[in-house]
Amino acid sequence: MARGRISRLSVRDIRFPTSLGGHGSDAMHTDPDYSAAYVILETDAEDGLKGYGITFTLGRGTEVVVCAVNALAHHVLNRDLGDIVGDFRGFYRQLTSDGQLRWIGPEKGVVHLATAAVLNAVWDLWAKQEGKPLWKLLVDMDPRRLLSCIDFRYITDVLTEEEAHEILQRGQVGKREREEQMLTEGYPAYTTSCAWLGYPDATLQQLCSEALKDGWTRFKVKVGADLQDDIRRCQLIRNMIGPEKTLMMDANQRWDVPEAVEWMARLAEFRPLWIEEPTSPDDILGHAAISKAGKPLLPGWWPYILQALAPLGIGVATGEQCHNRVIFKQLLQAKALQFLQIDSCRLGSVNENLAVLLMAKKFDVPVCPHAGGVGLCELVQHLIIFDFISVSASLKDRMCEYVDHLHEHFKYPVRIKKASYMPPKDAGYSTEMKEESVKKHQYPDGEVWKKLLAAPGD
Amino acid sequence: MARGRISRLSVRDIRFPTSLGGHGSDAMHTDPDYSAAYVILETDAEDGLKGYGITFTLGRGTEVVVCAVNALAHHVLNRDLGDIVGDFRGFYRQLTSDGQLRWIGPEKGVVHLATAAVLNAVWDLWAKQEGKPLWKLLVDMDPRRLLSCIDFRYITDVLTEEEAHEILQRGQVGKREREEQMLTEGYPAYTTSCAWLGYPDATLQQLCSEALKDGWTRFKVKVGADLQDDIRRCQLIRNMIGPEKTLMMDANQRWDVPEAVEWMARLAEFRPLWIEEPTSPDDILGHAAISKAGKPLLPGWWPYILQALAPLGIGVATGEQCHNRVIFKQLLQAKALQFLQIDSCRLGSVNENLAVLLMAKKFDVPVCPHAGGVGLCELVQHLIIFDFISVSASLKDRMCEYVDHLHEHFKYPVRIKKASYMPPKDAGYSTEMKEESVKKHQYPDGEVWKKLLAAPGD
Repeated sequence: MARGRISRLSVRDIRFPTSLGGHGSDAMHTDPDYSAAYVILETDAEDGLKGYGITFTLGRGTEVVVCAVNALAHHVLNRDLGDIVGDFRGFYRQLTSDGQLRWIGPEKGVVHLATAAVLNAVWDLWAKQEGKPLWKLLVDMDPRRLLSCIDFRYITDVLTEEEAHEILQRGQVGKREREEQMLTEGYPAYTTSCAWLGYPDATLQQLCSEALKDGWTRFKVKVGADLQDDIRRCQLIRNMIGPEKTLMMDANQRWDVPEAVEWMARLAEFRPLWIEEPTSPDDILGHAAISKAGKPLLPGWWPYILQALAPLGIGVATGEQCHNRVIFKQLLQAKALQFLQIDSCRLGSVNENLAVLLMAKKFDVPVCPHAGGVGLCELVQHLIIFDFISVSASLKDRMCEYVDHLHEHFKYPVRIKKASYMPPKDAGYSTEMKEESVKKHQYPDGEVWKKLLAAPGD
Repeated sequence: MARGRISRLSVRDIRFPTSLGGHGSDAMHTDPDYSAAYVILETDAEDGLKGYGITFTLGRGTEVVVCAVNALAHHVLNRDLGDIVGDFRGFYRQLTSDGQLRWIGPEKGVVHLATAAVLNAVWDLWAKQEGKPLWKLLVDMDPRRLLSCIDFRYITDVLTEEEAHEILQRGQVGKREREEQMLTEGYPAYTTSCAWLGYPDATLQQLCSEALKDGWTRFKVKVGADLQDDIRRCQLIRNMIGPEKTLMMDANQRWDVPEAVEWMARLAEFRPLWIEEPTSPDDILGHAAISKAGKPLLPGWWPYILQALAPLGIGVATGEQCHNRVIFKQLLQAKALQFLQIDSCRLGSVNENLAVLLMAKKFDVPVCPHAGGVGLCELVQHLIIFDFISVSASLKDRMCEYVDHLHEHFKYPVRIKKASYMPPKDAGYSTEMKEESVKKHQYPDGEVWKKLLAAPGD
């Protein structure tokens, strides 16, 4: 049973100067400093447990998310944790439908990132009180209870609560075996660590060769800034990994719709499994146009149909910047993606991700989560392990992104074995950072930033 | 010629306690305090002119937008105004594509509202330096120059710069006559002031009767919270205005897709011209399903098709919370709306609104701007008057929202004559507020708020 009244909510601006090494760089985000708005919830319960929640950011702007968390705080403070999780749908809606705050969203951008940070902390606290890792809390939860955490508003035209219940009921079959399978083999991963856009070829080669030695078989390369560069880099990586291993490409929204089709036609020879974020994350019909062959959905699309990507065997993947379940609903309705990439901090925490996992199951589209950044691997592994055990029951065409950065700052870092995520065993959502790391990287007054900001040229 | 270097950017949190009177209340925003993040730009030019920009908010959360404006300030400060407007597309993209800040958008929610406030101030300053009201600055601007303000990224699949140029070229024909027409007759408006959801029937009746006396012929009523209430209120207002005058309904996103169709079938007898925001502003395919009769666009929609709204003669309108040009592009592609409602502060200022006006023209969908709030009427009149003179060249099915609140706080308030917006004659974008009003309503330390916050019960 959840216990205690939320007696304190604090939030910190934590930044890692990753831009100095080109880590995380892509066609649209050339100088990211991986960062987080980091929420800590305390209760008046005697157990002394705290809930930690993060949302991922890229440096500048973290202070804006911090400000939004503070704007949400009055919905959280003095609330009983039992009441919150007892009507989690109501609480979710309270945060996302505040009559004044929803104007600056709704359910998107800064306020939704802030909502994610707060709710991630609530889930961490709840799981800790239950003494279970989050994935296990979800796996063990009664389906009706699980569904009571989801706000079905705006998605009932494709998924009603009853349909969702049927999906979860079917997911009960073979659940124990799948849990066992996860505990012994883990969830398959792919790596993005080798081929950031800012890395010189030599770095790319070295990291790729190390990754091969470590048993990685699936690789993602960043593309989209310069076609000739892309061809050279893709050639290089395909040569290194050989014809059998899997290669994915990621354009990080660099292209317009016609450009995406043309550009990918040029990169098709390197046989990518998918092209990720070919265009604006808001462009559902654009993704549909890019991904489809056959007859156009809407008039006026014929120029792209002849060259669209399906005949090339390239799928479309997107999701890390899709801002809520309504966008995912439409991407599924329009058959605009072949791989759905949830994000543990962009969507409204576990609650909204559950809705998306269930819709993906209904449409039979594999979920391949976005990870990396700061803590995204730590968090999203819980969701995808739950998905396998209780929802999708399949590993076909499925894998979870992995990036080898910044795990050392977490108290319960991910464990990768044979290129797979091993299920966390510690209670909670793996969101807690080491106090030492938090202190040093607090912006702008942590030790790391004090030094950097004092350095000449800054 | 634009002149001066931006030497100062300041931003204030201005709130009006409108929730106390139920003004502005609707099915989703029950207690709005109409507010604004208010940006002031100063230059080192000798003219002493300042640029004022606002974005509209609903109270709580204004401080988050203020924080986001400050996060954008480094892109603005010390820039030459001539350089900014000389490459306005580049400047727009710099604000919206900051490699770190775009993660917490991109081009949506808080950061985009902040972008709008900053750019609105730039346009105000530019127009003041040119000695023209903004609409006239736009009308007189060379089409190529006008297009150089627009970021065509993500919309070239429906509108290329060349197509946009052809539209503007065609708009040159008869321009002088239309300008004359505007100056004498003004732009037709409709009123939303009579029927906020929070008003008792007696207030509604009184306001409606006054509006009729003042010559209003088009009325909007808020619906969506309770069907029986809606029937009673719609009956009341239709009886008062008679069968010939125009009635619109606004649900402010209250419904899911099937619910919207069912609910409106019940209200059809009151013959609304449109239903506004029937569901989530993100739900392009949902709006398409609601608005369409005939064959379904996508499989699985058949349950709604039989009852969809087109056979009832009810159009779908949306836009005030559509967060960028990519959403509008798709709403047009999917024929999801029959009336397009731009907003002067939700989109990225004049720059992005120009893109939307041009797309709407291409798809031959009438633009009926959203207004009301604080300053929205003042700003958007410039855009729609420009639209008539230089783009649409038509008043068919077109009108601009008007709400009779808070104009007294503006230095250059709107002038309504015979239920029409009369073109502003003062130089600028009509964004400047009275210093006295700003001082009094600053949150939380202005006189008005000091009193309210000290009152018992707060």
